[in-house]
Amino acid sequence: MSFNFSSSRPCRTHQVPNWDLETDVIVVGFGAAGACAAIEAAGAGAAVTLLEAASGHGGTSALSGGEIYLGGSGGTPAQRQAGFSDDTEDLFRYLMMAGGADADESKVRLYAENSLGHYEWLVAQGVKYKNTFLPEKMLEPVTDDCLIWSGSEEAWPFVEHAKPCPRGHTPQWTGWGGGRMLMDTLAARVETLGVEVRYDSRVLALIADEANHVHGVVVRIAGQICFARARNGVILCAGGFVMNRDMVKRHVPHLLRSDNPIGTPGDNGTGILLGMSVGGAAIHMGEAFLSLPFYAPESLVNGIFINERGQRFINEDCYHGRVGYHIMQQMGDRIYLLVDNATFQPPADFTRIQIAAAGETWEEVEGDLGLPEGTLVSTVALYNRHAADGSDPLFHKAAKWLKPLNEPPFVALDCRVDYALYPHFTLGGLDTLPTGEVLTEKREPIGGLYAAGRTACGLPRWGGGYSSGMSLADATFFGRQAGLHAAKARQQG
Amino acid sequence: MSFNFSSSRPCRTHQVPNWDLETDVIVVGFGAAGACAAIEAAGAGAAVTLLEAASGHGGTSALSGGEIYLGGSGGTPAQRQAGFSDDTEDLFRYLMMAGGADADESKVRLYAENSLGHYEWLVAQGVKYKNTFLPEKMLEPVTDDCLIWSGSEEAWPFVEHAKPCPRGHTPQWTGWGGGRMLMDTLAARVETLGVEVRYDSRVLALIADEANHVHGVVVRIAGQICFARARNGVILCAGGFVMNRDMVKRHVPHLLRSDNPIGTPGDNGTGILLGMSVGGAAIHMGEAFLSLPFYAPESLVNGIFINERGQRFINEDCYHGRVGYHIMQQMGDRIYLLVDNATFQPPADFTRIQIAAAGETWEEVEGDLGLPEGTLVSTVALYNRHAADGSDPLFHKAAKWLKPLNEPPFVALDCRVDYALYPHFTLGGLDTLPTGEVLTEKREPIGGLYAAGRTACGLPRWGGGYSSGMSLADATFFGRQAGLHAAKARQQG
Repeated sequence: MSFNFSSSRPCRTHQVPNWDLETDVIVVGFGAAGACAAIEAAGAGAAVTLLEAASGHGGTSALSGGEIYLGGSGGTPAQRQAGFSDDTEDLFRYLMMAGGADADESKVRLYAENSLGHYEWLVAQGVKYKNTFLPEKMLEPVTDDCLIWSGSEEAWPFVEHAKPCPRGHTPQWTGWGGGRMLMDTLAARVETLGVEVRYDSRVLALIADEANHVHGVVVRIAGQICFARARNGVILCAGGFVMNRDMVKRHVPHLLRSDNPIGTPGDNGTGILLGMSVGGAAIHMGEAFLSLPFYAPESLVNGIFINERGQRFINEDCYHGRVGYHIMQQMGDRIYLLVDNATFQPPADFTRIQIAAAGETWEEVEGDLGLPEGTLVSTVALYNRHAADGSDPLFHKAAKWLKPLNEPPFVALDCRVDYALYPHFTLGGLDTLPTGEVLTEKREPIGGLYAAGRTACGLPRWGGGYSSGMSLADATFFGRQAGLHAAKARQQG
Repeated sequence: MSFNFSSSRPCRTHQVPNWDLETDVIVVGFGAAGACAAIEAAGAGAAVTLLEAASGHGGTSALSGGEIYLGGSGGTPAQRQAGFSDDTEDLFRYLMMAGGADADESKVRLYAENSLGHYEWLVAQGVKYKNTFLPEKMLEPVTDDCLIWSGSEEAWPFVEHAKPCPRGHTPQWTGWGGGRMLMDTLAARVETLGVEVRYDSRVLALIADEANHVHGVVVRIAGQICFARARNGVILCAGGFVMNRDMVKRHVPHLLRSDNPIGTPGDNGTGILLGMSVGGAAIHMGEAFLSLPFYAPESLVNGIFINERGQRFINEDCYHGRVGYHIMQQMGDRIYLLVDNATFQPPADFTRIQIAAAGETWEEVEGDLGLPEGTLVSTVALYNRHAADGSDPLFHKAAKWLKPLNEPPFVALDCRVDYALYPHFTLGGLDTLPTGEVLTEKREPIGGLYAAGRTACGLPRWGGGYSSGMSLADATFFGRQAGLHAAKARQQG
């Protein structure tokens, strides 16, 4: 066969010599989104085939902490046990702000109203939560505890619009890496439900008719080209594109300032390209999560970030990913976190944040850093003056983190973009309805095609609003919607 | 015929009932890019049909000042007459910086080496230049003069990497609006060369074969659906997408902070969507030119911009579009330009920049603006202290613009994003080779399809680097390349 398959061009139905495989729903990718899509589609009675390019399940979800952003409807058991009630409207408002200028209100609404139900669904799949709360600011629990503050809920400007509540739910798993446990649990459910899972199966192209309705995929399974028919639909859950550095250069070039993409080789953009090949619109392709995970130790939140002009640019008590977003808005690579003797604690080794300068006066630190005379010093003076009154009129850092930095020695921690750890992944992807249906640029649904997880552009779509657990929340919940909807759909032959 | 034509889905060749029109090259859009493409294709002997959705030529190019960014090879007559020599490598380096992190080196190289030749070509088409130079900082000449500083050539950081030279060339035309004259001149050439021009002709879809090779367009001409065949190729020159506010929301949402798009109704993204419908990759869709045209009067360049935290964020002597770009990086809508009695001149009425506060001391101005105590005052104090020494260690504004702001009364000009004039247009578009060939996300050329002007992503692709005249330089020069290349191409039946 001379047809040269490409993820940027569909194979047409009339070019299919014969169907090597027929099923109701084909799910592409066995991360969290694909697993949840398969579980729901199979649970609704559809025959489901799950195609995974790697030799095992998990994808990038398995590399994560497994944290999921959950709440609303009064609160999850963990939230209630910790004494919080979480109003659906507060969750809604927080997620709308987190989505930025083009937040997807229909998805946010659906998620806010059903997030508690989603928690219960996860538990029903076998995911275990200890339902304990750790109040300190941290990346994720190193213990098997559950609930943490995983975003900017208590920080300006979010706190002014939505009553804060911790919403990061981590599975019961000692140490980091709960994502592997989450994925093993979901994968066990996939197996129980009789989903046909094919590993080492790389999807090469969609199969679509002239009207771009999708009827299946061309997939290479263990070296063999197969034409696989999906009577109901294809669900793309193949990750983002952070590992495709050419695509990153053309869509999110600022990410190339860091060498720390988070992903598997599968995050090469294939899922997005497949959707685009039949007219799917990829949106917010310039947005990403990019973080400087500078806490814990949380005492560093008492410090102040400055750029290479000695200027502050953020309330340091917001989520570390929001800090990273604003670091990228500064001109120049040099970023410092200023702390004094009372607030200094050594940052975690993996952050590669080191001491750039230390001195008995801020003038000395300014000089050692080679900053223009008076810049750092006037910034610290202004901060200290207001902090002494318990206020931060510039960035509204909460009073509990406001302590004048006046106890020598004074330290500047080196957070330079080209050296410190700035983990990142992409947030742009296919535009979809809450049902997972992929949309064209004119927002017309493409028949037979769904997407979820980072192949889609979902709840998280703005780097300045991301919070830990949002990507998995989006992937698991909207993966489910896609699976449910595809199971009910039935295409015209 | 039941087929529902859509710019997001090509019509397949086998669906074409008959060719209503056959030609070698079809050009879509009669702005500067389309005109130059048609001129070169016709000049090379091809039969050319130019389809324009509006009832006359011009597009957004005709709304502009007609300024084109030209230089290199020692300099244009205007540059040499003004005493400048312009080295090709300086032009190259400036354009590479202007393109940002993903500057297209192959296009920049071709343009830098052929920009002087392009000037001569424009003159040969009948475009007239007076070859006089106006050294003041301005948007464009109100006289019929030619050469101005139209970018950030003399400003940091550009000045450190490329020897500055003025490169904005405005046609000989009294008053603003030289773009209409430019377009009339090019349109006369199009007519002379025997190009078949069809107005009121809206392209509905591309016509492509199974492999996505493009063979023509479906076009509605005066209400009639026509299937138009392009034996050599289709060149999309249909503008950007700034007037499609839904697309803007999904790709460049920050532009919605301003009500001042620059464009015609044709800038609705159709050209880009048509290219995407056959697998063309749209890149840098989140980038835009967005400006605060605060000078002339150039004395305002002596002032300092502050955000709502009283912080500076830019060297005020850079191009006004670069100022606009950095204004968008600041948190909050409030932006002020601080001047003193010695430097104040009233801004142009159309900018809607008004006086927000005035006082005998900077403390008074700070208080009137309601800025946190000590913010504006410490920023001005730091600036004045260094300016007195002729230095600006924070942003490296050139010494000629550094005067301490110490002569009362002191004034804060109100440049708030939600009120002042922030004209803007989109820079994202189809990825193309220097030949104009449209590329897939994998950078494979799509047979029979070209793009130029703002339908493509060209020399200007980063808001922080834009300079006046770059969009027209790109549109005219790469429009020509597409026309030349398409004239030589010949498709397989």
